[in-house]
Parts: sequence; structure tokens; C-alpha cells
Amino acid sequence: MRKKLRREKLVEIDLESGATLKSKAVILATGARWREMNVPGEQEYRGKGVAYCPHCDGPLFKGKRVAVIGGGNSGIEAAIDLAGIVEHVTVLEFSDTLRADAVLQRKAASMKNITIIKMAQTTEVRGDGNKVIGLTYKDRTRNELFDLDVAGIFVQIGLVPNTEWLKGDMELSRFGEIEVNSHGETNIPGVFAAGDVTNVPYKQIIIAMGHGSTAALGAFDYLIRSSVEDEAAA
Amino acid sequence: MRKKLRREKLVEIDLESGATLKSKAVILATGARWREMNVPGEQEYRGKGVAYCPHCDGPLFKGKRVAVIGGGNSGIEAAIDLAGIVEHVTVLEFSDTLRADAVLQRKAASMKNITIIKMAQTTEVRGDGNKVIGLTYKDRTRNELFDLDVAGIFVQIGLVPNTEWLKGDMELSRFGEIEVNSHGETNIPGVFAAGDVTNVPYKQIIIAMGHGSTAALGAFDYLIRSSVEDEAAA
Repeated sequence: MRKKLRREKLVEIDLESGATLKSKAVILATGARWREMNVPGEQEYRGKGVAYCPHCDGPLFKGKRVAVIGGGNSGIEAAIDLAGIVEHVTVLEFSDTLRADAVLQRKAASMKNITIIKMAQTTEVRGDGNKVIGLTYKDRTRNELFDLDVAGIFVQIGLVPNTEWLKGDMELSRFGEIEVNSHGETNIPGVFAAGDVTNVPYKQIIIAMGHGSTAALGAFDYLIRSSVEDEAAA
Repeated sequence: MRKKLRREKLVEIDLESGATLKSKAVILATGARWREMNVPGEQEYRGKGVAYCPHCDGPLFKGKRVAVIGGGNSGIEAAIDLAGIVEHVTVLEFSDTLRADAVLQRKAASMKNITIIKMAQTTEVRGDGNKVIGLTYKDRTRNELFDLDVAGIFVQIGLVPNTEWLKGDMELSRFGEIEVNSHGETNIPGVFAAGDVTNVPYKQIIIAMGHGSTAALGAFDYLIRSSVEDEAAA
């Protein structure tokens, strides 16, 4: 839908339709998307056992067995968080090592209801037609398939900011997030950003809402200051 | 109610009652209060014409005449903001100079419905029993009293963080605000802060709500990491 952003006298955004939006100030809030496993059953059971936010959906699985996909910081944090609520957590990590911080790995190892399986590639989400009943994974060492019976599957293999269209146009973090300061300002004057698309530490709706307000007030500050400069220059 | 905060093995907070609260992690959210004029009528007409937040209450005075008390950045920003909504804004500044940024002063000077009166000390809020009908101010140069008929009075002479009890215990900004990073962390391990009491740029409820979530997640990160260290040290 959108294609390119640049700063001329105004901020200009080219759309794929051929149209160009022009504005004195712009707030980018294009969000982010969870990286998906892309296996059969994932889309079908999304919201029916396949989940992406442990803080949000963890309580729905109280007393049940769940799996966490991914052994990075977010995966191991999710496992620790969930272990306090659910009966048991199995973490499936694709490679032969966890990428999570050592302190998180030690914490997870100290919890009796967390099992970590490495070299495990999820190949299918299994359900009963209404909800998740388990998953199938391939043991990549032995090249064999195994079934794991779980009620919930938390996919924690990354959050992808929707900034592909901005690459080269503005400063992005190494994760592709828009870098903002405490006023929601980006590196381009008049361009602000808010929410999950930015390098804000935690991705939660209420946090994004607050940052939307911050970016709006930042843009207001910018406009009441810059309009005078424009008039002075004119 | 609270008296002193210190970090021992746990974070400890002494209360005036003599009790001591102890916790692994603490989130400080004691807020801030608007600095008041302390003149007759101010309390009586608070919420009935006496207001403190132009973004919030400005629209209530659409088409009416209002006063802004204070010629600092927040006062002049309020005047510029309000001038787009109300019929006319009079800014009353106590001293003989405005402290607001020059660019804001130029912007305010360029707007036809803003009048700025310096050396003006508000002495009374006048009302009809139900709502504000005006104010009285002293011209400090001539030492004479004048009446100004306005429907709204926006008091913009500062926001005071509720941190008097923390002075000397932790790092505060020159305005007395608790300094936090993007994870809501203060300079004391295990002590987090959120909302208007911190050095966050804009004071709005939705922003404080988001930062409450950030501080809670920051504390969660801290706890799942520190508990392992405690166990390792034990």
C-alpha cells in the first residue's frame, strides 16, 4: 500500500496506487507481526491454542500442558512466565543451543515443570477441529517425528516490524525497528513513530497507546515551533 | 504516609506509621500535583472554570475567553493550543519577562487572539457561585488591581512531582522527577517508577498507563533474572 517516504519541503509518502501523501508532520504506526512457523494447522488454530503473547494468553492455559516454540530470550522468558501458571512447559528449539541469556537459561533449568528439547523442528499443529491437541516435531538429530500433546502452543520466534518499505529511507535498528527518542521523534524532522513498529522495549497494546499519545504531543510541539520558522523563512 | 526508601537485601520503605514495607521489587507511582496559585476562589472553582490541562479541558471553552496563568513553556504552549479553540486568550506572567522558548513567544505573538500581560499577579478567582466569571490581578508595576472577565483559567505554573520523601534516597532530575530509562528502571536495582512522578516528557493518563505496564514488565524481567543470582549466591 505504501512504498516510499522522503522529506522534501513537506514529508511525502508515495503509495503503490501512484498517489502521494504530503504532510507537515507524519506519525508512523504500522505495527509489527509475529514471525510464524508456517506449518500446517498454525493458521487454522490461531486463537484456538496457537498463541503469540504469553502475558496475554498464558492464563487461558492454567493447569494445562503447553509448548513454547523458540529458545531465544522471548521463548525462555515465556517458558518461565508460563511455568508459574500452567502444569508443564516444553520448549522446542530448532538449533543445538539456546540463544537466551545465561541467567534465563539457569532460571528455566531450575524450574521443575520446564523441559527443553533442542534440535527440534515443529512440523505440524494438530487439533481436533475446534482446538489444539498437540504438535508434531522432527528430532533433527535422529531425523524422526515425535508427537507432543499440548493444549497451547506459544510461538516465540520473533516479532517483525512492518518497515520493509522504509529501508534506506530512515534510521532503523538492527531488528528493523524505527528508532525513536522519548518524544517519539525519528531521525527525520517532522516524522514521528509509535507502537510496536518502534524500538520500544515491550510490545503491549497499552504501551503502544501511550506512545501514540507521546508521538501526537511530540508532533504538536514540532508543528507549533516549525510553523513560525516557515513563516520567518517565507 | 511514606518516609524513606532504601536498598538493603530487599527494597525497604519506612512509613510514617512506623511500619516498614519490604519487597524484592518496587514500582513507584506517586504522581505529581499541579502547582496552585493559592488565591481565594481557586479551590472553590476547580473543575468549574479553573483548569490545569489545556489538552484535556480546552474544548470545554470553545468560543469563550480564557486566561492562562504563567509565561513559561507550558503556559505559552497552552495559549497557542487554546487560541485555536477559544475566542481569546490572555496570558498573565508574574515577572517582566516570559521564560518560554523564543520560538514559542514568536508563535504566540503572531496569533491575533492572544494577549500577554507581564508583571501581573493573580489575586482572586471570581465566580457567580456556580462557575468562573473572571479573575482579579494586580499590575505589579503600577500596584493597581484589574478585573479580567474570563470563563476559564488555565493554571500553568508548574507540575510538582510527589518525591519530597525521596530526596537524598535516589536520583531525581532538577525538577525533582524520578529519572527512569526506557524499561522504567531507576538508579536503584529493583526500584522502578512510572507515570507523572518520572521524567517522562508528557504528563497524560494514557502515557502513565503505558509506562505502568513498562515498569511492571521491567520488574518482571528483573525478578526472573535476580532470583537466580540470589539462589546462586545463597
